[in-house]
Formats: sequence, structure tokens, C-alpha cells
Amino acid sequence: MDSPGRATTLSEFDLIARYFTRAPRHTTLAIGDDAALLSVSPGCELAASTDMLVEGVHFFPDVDPQALGHKALAVNLSDLAAMGARPRWAMLSLALPDVDGQWLEGFSRGFFSLADKHGVDLIGGDTSRGPRTICVQIMGEVGQGKALRRDGAKIGDDIWVSGELGDAAAAVAHRCGELNLEQAALERCRFRLDWPTPRIALGLELGALARSAIDVSDGLLGDLAHICERSGVGAEIEYSAVPCSADLRPLRDQERVNRAILAGGDDYELCFTAAAERAAEIEALATTLDIALTRIGGIIEGSAVSVFDAAGRPLPVRDKGFDHFR
Amino acid sequence: MDSPGRATTLSEFDLIARYFTRAPRHTTLAIGDDAALLSVSPGCELAASTDMLVEGVHFFPDVDPQALGHKALAVNLSDLAAMGARPRWAMLSLALPDVDGQWLEGFSRGFFSLADKHGVDLIGGDTSRGPRTICVQIMGEVGQGKALRRDGAKIGDDIWVSGELGDAAAAVAHRCGELNLEQAALERCRFRLDWPTPRIALGLELGALARSAIDVSDGLLGDLAHICERSGVGAEIEYSAVPCSADLRPLRDQERVNRAILAGGDDYELCFTAAAERAAEIEALATTLDIALTRIGGIIEGSAVSVFDAAGRPLPVRDKGFDHFR
Repeated sequence: MDSPGRATTLSEFDLIARYFTRAPRHTTLAIGDDAALLSVSPGCELAASTDMLVEGVHFFPDVDPQALGHKALAVNLSDLAAMGARPRWAMLSLALPDVDGQWLEGFSRGFFSLADKHGVDLIGGDTSRGPRTICVQIMGEVGQGKALRRDGAKIGDDIWVSGELGDAAAAVAHRCGELNLEQAALERCRFRLDWPTPRIALGLELGALARSAIDVSDGLLGDLAHICERSGVGAEIEYSAVPCSADLRPLRDQERVNRAILAGGDDYELCFTAAAERAAEIEALATTLDIALTRIGGIIEGSAVSVFDAAGRPLPVRDKGFDHFR
Repeated sequence: MDSPGRATTLSEFDLIARYFTRAPRHTTLAIGDDAALLSVSPGCELAASTDMLVEGVHFFPDVDPQALGHKALAVNLSDLAAMGARPRWAMLSLALPDVDGQWLEGFSRGFFSLADKHGVDLIGGDTSRGPRTICVQIMGEVGQGKALRRDGAKIGDDIWVSGELGDAAAAVAHRCGELNLEQAALERCRFRLDWPTPRIALGLELGALARSAIDVSDGLLGDLAHICERSGVGAEIEYSAVPCSADLRPLRDQERVNRAILAGGDDYELCFTAAAERAAEIEALATTLDIALTRIGGIIEGSAVSVFDAAGRPLPVRDKGFDHFR
């Protein structure tokens, strides 16, 4: 056994065998052949998505590897949650500058502990030497024609959001010196940045209640704009109704915090629209799942996303969300 | 319109819309939602695989982007070929240092021209700023229980290989100053390195003829060792029977060329095993598909892969294939 923490001469095959091999649950053939073979349930559609995480862009070089393993899978699960799909299979490609046993130990622990929680089989992947880059591809099942799409919003729909927005972006803003959080608030925000919770159970229930959904990964305004564009509608939201944590609440009129809440990204909450008459069922679901679900506005004619204050005055908004090439 | 070749302010959404959006063929919902929805044929299993390409590791920084787009998909298609699966869907994740219109134009042209050839829908992906890294994930269909696996080789099977081995590795060796090829030979070898042909039609036919298969991506000896390990068998091959191009033939006893042929990798030919009584059918298939299929040895008891010369003397072999962390 190599001692953890030191660069070793572990081969890529040993690396996969030691850190990334587990017994599959719903897979005919998993890691170890040219491709994996999946058993797809009849009457189901397969939902597939992928997210790539690059060091220095999506995570700081000193991030806890266990948190990173969690987050790499969580951001992908969040996409399935936004489709109302049940996660089943994941593939993991890793470029690493070296083989660091301690790092891989932590990363794989974080990855598998979330995979186990949602019954996800790791069915394949690739490893390479290179700048630290993680690419996860996720697949799940959803009943034929039952998926929560972005293009289903209708004029008159309520707009809802789960949980609270802005904490993750506030933690990044603090680190970049653009915001000053107190120690306890900073630690909670940093936890929300590093350990996001994909809203799988919520997504599965919303299949029958919502008309459209998206996960808030790039920032509320930008992500809601995707629903509007795909559905051919506009949206208006009331800033004071957008839920944020108790830590951010006293600061929410500061420009930088306002931007974290509306456009910060990395929240991995669900934003969804539903007919007004489903409001009571959605509120009951919030109680059942013990998760905050907040009505923040409504779908209107047009194509723009507008933000208003409590008095109904339009609020100017500087940034719409994260775009890797702007 | 931005002029091609200059770094532009194109957003990641524009980048996807301009370079990576095509009409889907067998997809309920493709790019533009949190996940794609796939239509899977009844009685089929879904084969899924992924390969990551990192600049400086898998390709030279000055590689033709069109060749790179082709190759990024080709190496993934090759994995499906080795499963006997019919390619259907691909996802593409790209980390790029900047938005270079000319590069993206070439890359997407190379990618789609191969995708079109094999009827593959691009159903999603991710883009990010970062060191140039390409991660493709491929999915295809194979009849229930019909996949060509690595674990099916039986003692007494013939070992076959398609095409010719060693050209791609010879091109790399030349570039690294370890081998000196003449100009015409170099150009042909470089073409084989940059524009590999995935053996999809062959893989589909071998489903009914072969007992096990793998694509030669890491080098013949290493890849054949995977078949042996998974099947619990050994293998012996005759070096002089291993097919190489006319350019390498006069050099095949040089140590560096020998290593390119046996262990070079990047060939993307298929290595497969079949019962001896299928030899005539396999030879007929070679004629039908107009592709060389050569018997290079046999499956034996044991676990090792041994190489012999034409007189039956064992040949010492230095390297087994490419391993990213050795």
C-alpha cells in the first residue's frame, strides 16, 4: 500500500480499482469494458446531462476534496432534479496533475456518499494526467412524457423557488474581497457553496404539479430567462419575496448582496412555474418535504424578466447570471 | 457577426447555439434543457462510454481543430464499436482558454461530419473557460444480451485484429525525435494519428461472430491483457503476424517501431477473439467490409500475454501500453 498523501506510481487502472469501483445496482455491465450497459425500465425516458468543473473557475485549488467529490455529483443531480427524473447512472472523467492518495480518498468518499444516498451507480469514466478538471455525466429515468421541461411555462403561472438564494455567491464575494461577512455567516455560506443539496425528492414530486422548471445554477435571473425564452413568455418577480438566509437578510439591499441573491449562481435550488390553482398543493408539499417553497412572482406576456420592489417600482439589475465567456 | 479567428465576446449560450446546435434524429428533447431525453428502443440495452482529451497529453497544442473535433468523437465511437453497439447520442464538454471562432468552426465541423456519418445526435454538454480539455460521452444501442464484452474469450479462440497497428504511435515518436520517418510515411502516419476511423460497421457485424472484443486505444498488448484479465485466460501472439503499414514494415524490427506496433496505442482498431471455426466467416466479412482482418494468435490457459517470433522463440517486450499515471 502506498501511503496516502504522497504522489505514487499507482496506474490509472489501479486508481480506478482502488477509488472508484463499487457493486452496481441497476446496471448489466459497469466499469471495466469499453462501455457500460444500462437496464432501462419500459415506459421510461432516459434523462442525461453533464457538468464540467475546472480548477480556478468552478472551485478554488484549496477546496476540501471530499466536498469537491460531493459537489461534482451534486451539480449534475441538480439537473436531473430540474427534469423531475430519478437518478440512476453516472460517469466520471478526471484529469489530475498527479496521483495523490489522500486527495482521491476524500474525493471518492464525497462522491460515493452522495451517489449512495440517491442510488446512483458509477458506470464508467476516464482518467488522465492534466490540469485538475472533473467531468461528470449523469443519467436518470423519467416516466414517458412526464419530464419537467423548460418550455412549459404559461401566462398566469406562479413562479416559485425552493430554499434560499445567494449564500454560495456571498461566500465567493467574501473570498474575493467584495463583501465582508461575519465569521459564523461566512462559514454557513461557505458550507452552502461547497456542499450543495440537489433537490431530487422535490423534482420527483413536481413532475405532477409544475409546468416548467430549471435548477438555479447560473443565477436566478439568467436561469428564469431560459424558461421565458424556451416558453415564449415573460416574467416579473418581486425582489423582497425572493428568499435568502437570515445571514444575508440584513444586507440584502447592498448592491453586492442583491446581485448574489438575484444573479449569483451555485445555489442548486429549483425555480419552477405552476398554475395558480396548484398553490395549496405546493404549500402542502413544502411541509411534507420540509423544504421552503416560496412564490416570488408570475409569468406574463412578453420575453423579459423584470424585477420590482415591494411598492411595485422596477429595480434596475446589473448582472443576469454567470456566463463563462463574458 | 464576429470575424472568425478573433477572441470574441460570444457568450456560452451563443457559442452553443452557433457551433453546436443541430436538429436531433432520435431524441425527444436535445440541447437546451437541464437534461436531454432519449428514446430507447425496446429490447435494446444502452451502451455508454466516455473519453477525455487533454491538451499536451492527448493532442499537441497546434493540432488542426477539425481533426481534433473528429478525433474527440472517433475515440468514443471506437468504444461503442468494441461493444458491437449502434451509436445514437453524444454529449460534449469543452473547457477552452478563450472563444476563438475559427477554432470552434473547425472543431465543430470535424465533430459533426463524423456524427452525421454515424447518425449520432449531440444531445447536450457543458462549456467553461479553462485549459483546453474535451470530454465526450457517447451512448448507443445494442440488442439485449448481444454486446461484445471483454470477458467472453475462451481457450482455443483465435485472436484477430482489424486494419494495421503502429502508425499513430510512429507519428508521435517521430515528433518526439525518437524515430525518423520519411516525409510521405510521416504524413500518412500523422493522418492516422489525427483522423482515426472508428470500426462501427465491423463491431456491429462481430456481435454475431466474436466472443470478446476491445478497441486498441492504449496499445495492443495492454488492451489484449484486459481481455485476458476479464476472461481469466492467457494469450500468445506472433509478432510477425501483427499487421502494420507498408511504411513501417521495413522498420518493424527496430525497437522503437516494434514498440509502436505492439504497445503504441491510438490505433482505434478492434482486437477480438472468436472460435476457430468462425475463421472463414471472418475472412468473408473482411472482404464484404473491405477491411483487413488478421489472425495474430490464440487464447491459451494462464493469464499472461506472450509474444513469439516466427520461429516460436519468445520475444521480450518492454512496454505494455499507455498508462496516464506511470
